[in-house]
Amino acid sequence: MGYATGRDEALVERAMRRAIELAANGPARGVNPRVGCVILDAEGTVIAEGWHRGAGTAHAEVDALSRLAPGRAAGTTAVVTLEPCNHTGRTGPCSVALVEAGVARVVYAASDPGERSSGGAERLRSAGIAVRDGVLATEVEELLGDWLIAARLRRPVVTVKWASSLDGRAAAADGSSRWITGPEARADVHRRRAAADAIAVGTGTVLADDPSLTARDEHGALLQEQPIPVVFGRRPIPADATIRRHPREPMFFDGAELRTALRELHGLGARSLFVEGGPTLASAFIAAGLVDELLVYLAPVLLGGPRLALTDLGIASMESALRLEIRAVERLGADLLVVATPLLHPPVDDATNSTGDPTGPIDAFTEGN
Amino acid sequence: MGYATGRDEALVERAMRRAIELAANGPARGVNPRVGCVILDAEGTVIAEGWHRGAGTAHAEVDALSRLAPGRAAGTTAVVTLEPCNHTGRTGPCSVALVEAGVARVVYAASDPGERSSGGAERLRSAGIAVRDGVLATEVEELLGDWLIAARLRRPVVTVKWASSLDGRAAAADGSSRWITGPEARADVHRRRAAADAIAVGTGTVLADDPSLTARDEHGALLQEQPIPVVFGRRPIPADATIRRHPREPMFFDGAELRTALRELHGLGARSLFVEGGPTLASAFIAAGLVDELLVYLAPVLLGGPRLALTDLGIASMESALRLEIRAVERLGADLLVVATPLLHPPVDDATNSTGDPTGPIDAFTEGN
Repeated sequence: MGYATGRDEALVERAMRRAIELAANGPARGVNPRVGCVILDAEGTVIAEGWHRGAGTAHAEVDALSRLAPGRAAGTTAVVTLEPCNHTGRTGPCSVALVEAGVARVVYAASDPGERSSGGAERLRSAGIAVRDGVLATEVEELLGDWLIAARLRRPVVTVKWASSLDGRAAAADGSSRWITGPEARADVHRRRAAADAIAVGTGTVLADDPSLTARDEHGALLQEQPIPVVFGRRPIPADATIRRHPREPMFFDGAELRTALRELHGLGARSLFVEGGPTLASAFIAAGLVDELLVYLAPVLLGGPRLALTDLGIASMESALRLEIRAVERLGADLLVVATPLLHPPVDDATNSTGDPTGPIDAFTEGN
Repeated sequence: MGYATGRDEALVERAMRRAIELAANGPARGVNPRVGCVILDAEGTVIAEGWHRGAGTAHAEVDALSRLAPGRAAGTTAVVTLEPCNHTGRTGPCSVALVEAGVARVVYAASDPGERSSGGAERLRSAGIAVRDGVLATEVEELLGDWLIAARLRRPVVTVKWASSLDGRAAAADGSSRWITGPEARADVHRRRAAADAIAVGTGTVLADDPSLTARDEHGALLQEQPIPVVFGRRPIPADATIRRHPREPMFFDGAELRTALRELHGLGARSLFVEGGPTLASAFIAAGLVDELLVYLAPVLLGGPRLALTDLGIASMESALRLEIRAVERLGADLLVVATPLLHPPVDDATNSTGDPTGPIDAFTEGN
């Protein structure tokens, strides 16, 4: 297109920056991503803006188009942070709305990874609309963060955390573990935990520690946004367990396959899951290849004995060791934090593979509309 | 003394620096420390120098005095890096030699920690000689290094090293452990091992790995100075074990109390012992409070399973955890090295305490004379 002059390039990029600003008004949590849209007329003037306010509300493109008088969108350029969806939910697909409005060109940053919502670009092209992708993709992927990774994985991004002695013990022989790590490490855990959409523990930890699984600020006050408390395991939880008084209703997965549980959490809008432990649950997530990030808090302590931070991973020999990459090493007071990621990421879940779930993965983006 | 003018101060310090240079000519290994001595006349001119060439040869003071014509030492100042000994070995005590030579003043840097050799300063003072200590003490303590710490502890300085996965495993379930850590970490171990006077392994490691326990340069060639190979444990070692072809005859401690074994090694001149493992031996040294430095090589790997880098330390609850201080964290290729020291160092061994050895600790400095 003769259209793509240097001036046009600059206008489109400026519009994308504005679309990113608009997107950031949307909710940081929930099933849907933050998306912004700017409509430019043939001269490159902004004539409408829109953004998505969360599940159940208009998508950014439809929000922007709704600001225009009928027919005003004809021949315009829609600049949108995410590929317009191709899915019929409560409303028709955004790609169809753009075609029907007579938009001449669509520019977007990131492709829609949703299984049912993707294909919008193709539908636009079929309708004769000029389509361009990848403009400021890095910035937009950063904005989308865990939503995008979770959408690609079709499950929440999983962080597994443990605190251990330098010799890998989570507790002394009698089970005592307060405090292996110091206040700086514990504060770091609190900060990271508060950023997660869901927090998981095993029933053993509930029975042993009776955790609240609430996110609190540095003064101990409950934060307004609370993670979903999740309990894995078959052992019964007492009626008066602290977790039952959590501001959000706890989810119990008693014996569910981990992957199935993650898919359910993703469908509820959990982009990230913080696995608190104990050792059995952490080991199960690792053994299943369902970990994206490991946070290992190492205390300058030796304990010896039988209480290990990880139990068995089903690894028989060095060849099948789970290799990691160390992303960061931080000193937190007297302790160390090692942040690591698995070197070989498990392949993205596939509806046709071994999970035995005939419905296929939930498409988080469209599910909430 | 009117003697201690600014000019005198400067002359004494310069003489001590020269004595340190002389001391450094001595052997870095063996039962005796490196000691240097400078004799100054009343005007502060250097009239003799001496240094100790190792067990069985003259001490530095006697070496320096021997350079002087009879009577020439009268009224002089002897500047010596270590407190003159008070022990009668093959020759009489240095303190007596200085008194008999008519030396007017003795200046030294570090006190002699030896149980039988100490007390030289007191004997000199009793004979009316002016005595001053602590001049450039830090520099001299650095020169004396492990000799001084070992002499204070009355045993070699003990370093315990292990390599483990991030979850504290030394091997996979089938026993395979090559290679948990990468080449940079292994090269670091080789360098540190080559600096030790003795290297210890348990019989389990000999049977499993058949190690050579030799120190080699980066090309794999045998170094001229070799550590004493030491094997702890009761299991029989095959006649054709590689360790039996070590350039130095291996020492076998089959069932000896660790403290007793360390005292014997110290008596043979071992200032430092590098404990290679396996887990049983490393755990035994740690549980006995006989570790001065820990080298923990952590590989970015998870293994799970039963093969732990440390076994049991006799620690029942968190209150009795062995607390460490992390001295350094280094990234070696993909691995981490954590250097740590026990926070509460065990008290210096005492001849009257629980070891049941009526001969008391060996005085390393005087034993070889």
